[in-house]
Amino acid sequence: MSELWYTEKQTKNFGITLKVKETLHTEKTDFQYLEMIDTEEFGHMLFLDGMVMTSEKDEFVYHEMVAHVPLFTHPNPENILVVGGGDGGVIREVLKHPQVKKATLVDIDGKVIEYSKKYLPEIAGKLEDPRVDVKVGDGFMHIAQSEDEYDVIMVDSTEPVGPAVNLFTKGFYAGIAKALKEDGIFVAQTDNPWFTPDLIATVQRDVKEIFPITKLYTANIPTYPSGLWTFTIGSKKYDPLKVSDERFHNIETKYYTKELHKACFVLPKFVSDLLV
Amino acid sequence: MSELWYTEKQTKNFGITLKVKETLHTEKTDFQYLEMIDTEEFGHMLFLDGMVMTSEKDEFVYHEMVAHVPLFTHPNPENILVVGGGDGGVIREVLKHPQVKKATLVDIDGKVIEYSKKYLPEIAGKLEDPRVDVKVGDGFMHIAQSEDEYDVIMVDSTEPVGPAVNLFTKGFYAGIAKALKEDGIFVAQTDNPWFTPDLIATVQRDVKEIFPITKLYTANIPTYPSGLWTFTIGSKKYDPLKVSDERFHNIETKYYTKELHKACFVLPKFVSDLLV
Repeated sequence: MSELWYTEKQTKNFGITLKVKETLHTEKTDFQYLEMIDTEEFGHMLFLDGMVMTSEKDEFVYHEMVAHVPLFTHPNPENILVVGGGDGGVIREVLKHPQVKKATLVDIDGKVIEYSKKYLPEIAGKLEDPRVDVKVGDGFMHIAQSEDEYDVIMVDSTEPVGPAVNLFTKGFYAGIAKALKEDGIFVAQTDNPWFTPDLIATVQRDVKEIFPITKLYTANIPTYPSGLWTFTIGSKKYDPLKVSDERFHNIETKYYTKELHKACFVLPKFVSDLLV
Repeated sequence: MSELWYTEKQTKNFGITLKVKETLHTEKTDFQYLEMIDTEEFGHMLFLDGMVMTSEKDEFVYHEMVAHVPLFTHPNPENILVVGGGDGGVIREVLKHPQVKKATLVDIDGKVIEYSKKYLPEIAGKLEDPRVDVKVGDGFMHIAQSEDEYDVIMVDSTEPVGPAVNLFTKGFYAGIAKALKEDGIFVAQTDNPWFTPDLIATVQRDVKEIFPITKLYTANIPTYPSGLWTFTIGSKKYDPLKVSDERFHNIETKYYTKELHKACFVLPKFVSDLLV
């Protein structure tokens, strides 16, 4: 019997390859090429423009680490904005925090939301929660129109190609600062240090100009390039490394722990060298 | 022009694929199938039985993390044994410690040593150092014939298939304990928690029966399965988490730092759950 393998070129010269059980859905949306694939190793997977967005097997790492590091850093995160993240995984983690009163999701591509609900129900299942407001629209514009509104903003974007290109600009970070309250925090995924070191260095430099507390943390995500993913956190007031033990409460996680909350900021030397 | 790609299936259903510049050498040795490949993304790479052993681009992670965690844990590591590791990378790192008087390398396959010297000179270059004794032979037998001799033993083996299968047994760990001095330390690479969780759990359980201090630590290695590699450390006396700041001295590294020495033991929850 013939075998079907899906290969993602993560760089021009390197890729991962996944044995396919079944192609569930493919569609050219108004913004990107969307594929839902059932794979043998990682279960259902969402690809946008040929890049892995999430998989059933390892999604918990990304979603927990985007959400819980800023949410436990902030003493009282009530009003949350997620830009991108139409699969709903970050929202699911956000709702584990009892202080959260409202979580707004703004994804530019309604098809990502629609097909995540259909094929990734364990990830997208909380998008119907009454605390959640799902908007299909331009995150950049939404940020530009918001002022002194959010406690935490999470940017769960694709790579800086296609519809996400505006989400890696200084103007966007300035808009985020304005949209946040005076003690707000934001976090963005910032790719990996092996293949895109310049991106990390640039984002850190840009964010540092706007946020007094800017740091980088990492997590291991097997389906993402190099397995070592970075997140840039910018905070107006609260230092993620100075969270008191009392702030942490028990939530169900598979990756995040309160010890890892601090250890994830300890960087390999070649990564911290990028931030100088 | 046609393109040549080398694909390693890391599991039955998942792999990595690398664009090849040139095949430098292939040979069926007495023990395994050896390939030296020049790749676009990771430079020269050594494969044994189709599995990545090391690459010029990311080799520093594995070699630094095998060597420096136990060597900075031991207060005076003078006599070192490396089992496997014929590429010479661990030896190179071992020699950065001025206390080391002798480092013995025992690799079963002389061809690995020979072709590493030829095609991976930055990695193998220290094998000619006067403090180094290179032996081509069976590491299992060498251990069995040693008693109260080594301060630190490092097991730099392939996966537990082929010639390395004996290196993942309780009898081997008991032999290591006998070959170590009364305050000795050993470390072994123990694969990854995403695709081989049972191996990690088994090794930890077996080593715990013999060594009073047994711990697991991790490092990010992009060319190894899942990008998250684990190392099991067994110590008779010294706790790697209780190294005083004075013990550390400056050595040139690209991954290891004294802060990471402790942070690398902070595990994702699904990994620490394997050790219960």
